[in-house]
Amino acid sequence: MYSLGELAGRLDLAFSGDAQRSLNGLASLNRAGPTDLAFVADREHLPELAQTRAGAVILTAELAPLCPVDHLLSDSPYLMFARASALFAPSTQPPLGVHASATIAPGAVLAQEVCIGPGVVVEAGATIGAGVVLDAGVYVGRDCRLGVGTRIYPNAVLYHDVHVGDNCIIHSQAVLGADGFGFARGPGGWEKIHQLGGVRIGDCVEIGAGTTVDRGTLDHTVISEGVIIDNQVQIAHNCHIGKNTAIAGCVGLAGSTIIGANCTLAGGVGVVGHVEICDDVHVTGMTMVTRSITEPGSYSCGTPMAETREWKRSAVRFSQLEVIYQRLIALERGRS
Amino acid sequence: MYSLGELAGRLDLAFSGDAQRSLNGLASLNRAGPTDLAFVADREHLPELAQTRAGAVILTAELAPLCPVDHLLSDSPYLMFARASALFAPSTQPPLGVHASATIAPGAVLAQEVCIGPGVVVEAGATIGAGVVLDAGVYVGRDCRLGVGTRIYPNAVLYHDVHVGDNCIIHSQAVLGADGFGFARGPGGWEKIHQLGGVRIGDCVEIGAGTTVDRGTLDHTVISEGVIIDNQVQIAHNCHIGKNTAIAGCVGLAGSTIIGANCTLAGGVGVVGHVEICDDVHVTGMTMVTRSITEPGSYSCGTPMAETREWKRSAVRFSQLEVIYQRLIALERGRS
Amino acid sequence: MYSLGELAGRLDLAFSGDAQRSLNGLASLNRAGPTDLAFVADREHLPELAQTRAGAVILTAELAPLCPVDHLLSDSPYLMFARASALFAPSTQPPLGVHASATIAPGAVLAQEVCIGPGVVVEAGATIGAGVVLDAGVYVGRDCRLGVGTRIYPNAVLYHDVHVGDNCIIHSQAVLGADGFGFARGPGGWEKIHQLGGVRIGDCVEIGAGTTVDRGTLDHTVISEGVIIDNQVQIAHNCHIGKNTAIAGCVGLAGSTIIGANCTLAGGVGVVGHVEICDDVHVTGMTMVTRSITEPGSYSCGTPMAETREWKRSAVRFSQLEVIYQRLIALERGRS
Repeated sequence: MYSLGELAGRLDLAFSGDAQRSLNGLASLNRAGPTDLAFVADREHLPELAQTRAGAVILTAELAPLCPVDHLLSDSPYLMFARASALFAPSTQPPLGVHASATIAPGAVLAQEVCIGPGVVVEAGATIGAGVVLDAGVYVGRDCRLGVGTRIYPNAVLYHDVHVGDNCIIHSQAVLGADGFGFARGPGGWEKIHQLGGVRIGDCVEIGAGTTVDRGTLDHTVISEGVIIDNQVQIAHNCHIGKNTAIAGCVGLAGSTIIGANCTLAGGVGVVGHVEICDDVHVTGMTMVTRSITEPGSYSCGTPMAETREWKRSAVRFSQLEVIYQRLIALERGRS
Repeated sequence: MYSLGELAGRLDLAFSGDAQRSLNGLASLNRAGPTDLAFVADREHLPELAQTRAGAVILTAELAPLCPVDHLLSDSPYLMFARASALFAPSTQPPLGVHASATIAPGAVLAQEVCIGPGVVVEAGATIGAGVVLDAGVYVGRDCRLGVGTRIYPNAVLYHDVHVGDNCIIHSQAVLGADGFGFARGPGGWEKIHQLGGVRIGDCVEIGAGTTVDRGTLDHTVISEGVIIDNQVQIAHNCHIGKNTAIAGCVGLAGSTIIGANCTLAGGVGVVGHVEICDDVHVTGMTMVTRSITEPGSYSCGTPMAETREWKRSAVRFSQLEVIYQRLIALERGRS
Repeated sequence: MYSLGELAGRLDLAFSGDAQRSLNGLASLNRAGPTDLAFVADREHLPELAQTRAGAVILTAELAPLCPVDHLLSDSPYLMFARASALFAPSTQPPLGVHASATIAPGAVLAQEVCIGPGVVVEAGATIGAGVVLDAGVYVGRDCRLGVGTRIYPNAVLYHDVHVGDNCIIHSQAVLGADGFGFARGPGGWEKIHQLGGVRIGDCVEIGAGTTVDRGTLDHTVISEGVIIDNQVQIAHNCHIGKNTAIAGCVGLAGSTIIGANCTLAGGVGVVGHVEICDDVHVTGMTMVTRSITEPGSYSCGTPMAETREWKRSAVRFSQLEVIYQRLIALERGRS
């Protein structure tokens, strides 16, 4: 789809080789064929580089002499690979305009050049920015606002009063703005606290499939610019997520959690409510964050995986740790 | 939207101040302005109370002398706040009647005064109670029954033979009645055990976004009256959840789990199959319940979060606990 | 719905009793009435067998003399029960043909005898095999392929280039082919790595409600023949799942995880990325798999559940394990 020369131009990179060489896909070094573009980002993959049959490889100047095929030079081959991926991604959006089966309320405002698929519903008071793509079955509630160039994949749901910035991606089955889990105990059982806040999402945010972001109780739940969230993440009411923080799959944040900028939460992490995590914190997989974190760094909990038989022995002793500790103290006293 | 006098009347509370004062929203004590209603439930927030600019505050008689603005008197300010929230919640339901794009099977029975949005499907044999709201894209399978006043948010799915009581709320992407995970090993691989039971949900139940409640194998999966369930909870086939139990986000219950009344399961808890949890049990976040619980109380497992470097030292020693224990015994024997 | 004689014929089993006896449902031994079929698979249930009021029971020849009612003989009563369940499952599919409200792109190819419900969308280039059932609101993206007899329940979503084999079942709100969570750090924040691979799913696979299977980055995410996956499972990009492996609810697999054949992952298990699990591995509930597993067997991690007060004592000592260990060494040295 691109010649090597065109690709170099689009990525703004110097290249060495046949400018007319035709490249029509991306592949890893050892799978790439003569029409594929590959990349190498570290010396660990030098053996594959030496053997590669790729049409061209993105690499640093340092590695260029070791490359048997055409190449593009970059100080950040991985980043350039990301940018190249955008060039090779197929278009999958519905055609320009509004599908006949969509239901657009009279009071909704659509910009020019939107692509709205079959069965989409946009309620009154919603504002849809230029270039927005709403795939089939998407629901956009009252008074929502979608910024320029944002895409929402099939069947995702935005309740009312959810604002999404420019150039965001919301994947299928995501739910933005469902009620936070707020109840008061009444004489006959739980009584619902209606959730009167909304959701505010900054620019360039990506939200994974099946992820849920609840609306705030009184104020808004806030996801800042540049945040990336994987699939099946639960973000409860009143959370604030700082800029460029990355949240991997199956993470659960309880209500009113504040997370700083540039944090990474690995898969399956849980955070109890009403705690604050400062900027630049990394939490390892399946850790439960039970208190605020005020120092940047890496945090963990749990026990190491083992064969079940061995693990059971350790687990039994875990339950006896207090007694073990007391016996140790008794021994120490015995010696002194 | 309400005058102070009207609000007092609707909440059945005595008040002190200007009956004509106009209140058009709820806010926390320190964010509230002169047209907002706030509340204070404990002495911890007395400093905010002293400074508040709210139009009116719900509080106990004991705190009334400390309140610089108009107030409503209640022994349960938090509960009254919950009830007030209902008064200020905007209406977001589709208009009365059945949207032209909905597909209602000939054999379905709709009560008067239902609100059925675009693209809704109701299959034959389903019975929809008075005042039910089915938002856009909701699917209601054969022989389902929905009680009076129940609301189902966009794109939620009810398989066949799911009964939901009166005044329930089912959030978007919830799935009620999908097949339980039942298979027998056959000579060529897994063979499906078709799930022939249904789902029975009592009155006043709320089920969160993306939550799944599987149908029973032979009998029904049962969720009792007044249960509240947060987002992304998985409830497997044949579970029974007792009255007024609260289940927080990302909890997973394996098959045939029985949970009593008035329990609370915090976020991320897992329960293995075929165990029973008695009434009034609290399970803390991310605990794995591996056996039946027969005594009310609070239950936990896991290890404390720490800096990853420190945590690793403890984790290594955890794997050696049996050896550590044996060495301790050897020392004790050496002394005796 | 069946006579005992018919059932015996369909299951290819010998029987003893009244061939005309009418059986119209399945039930457990102690709930079954005279028109129900039950089964007994082990001696543990002999007391229920002795008391059963079932119309007929599936059991081994060994137990036949202990059965007070008609029976069907099988060496695998549980498996025969599974097969019987298929006979009693009600039909819930939409009628043959394409519903008027479905949107089938001109370039899509539908086999004969498909059942396509209201609001379904099938994009260009998709191929739908004979006997496929697409329930209401299902979305099938460009260039997808669905094998013969596959069923997709309401509102599930398949992005483009997802192939599903024959006789698969995909439950509601499942998402197949959403973008894997791939980003490179750029100067201004995360830059998306467009996910150019697809998803390839073998024959006879079942995928639960709300489960997400991401598309591959360059190659495909692969789920082999006979795999069964429960609800709310997250399978990240580039994973490979081997034949007949079973994955229970709420499991999360990070990117590029390779899992062998005939494995079982219990509920809530997490697997970090880029590890390999060999065939015939069992992982117990909520274990975090942090390294490759090269030997068949059972693997675990975690600590035992306890009353919160007791657990806290152990948890505190866990944090002190390194110090405890050092004090133990000091004692040992003191003795030597």
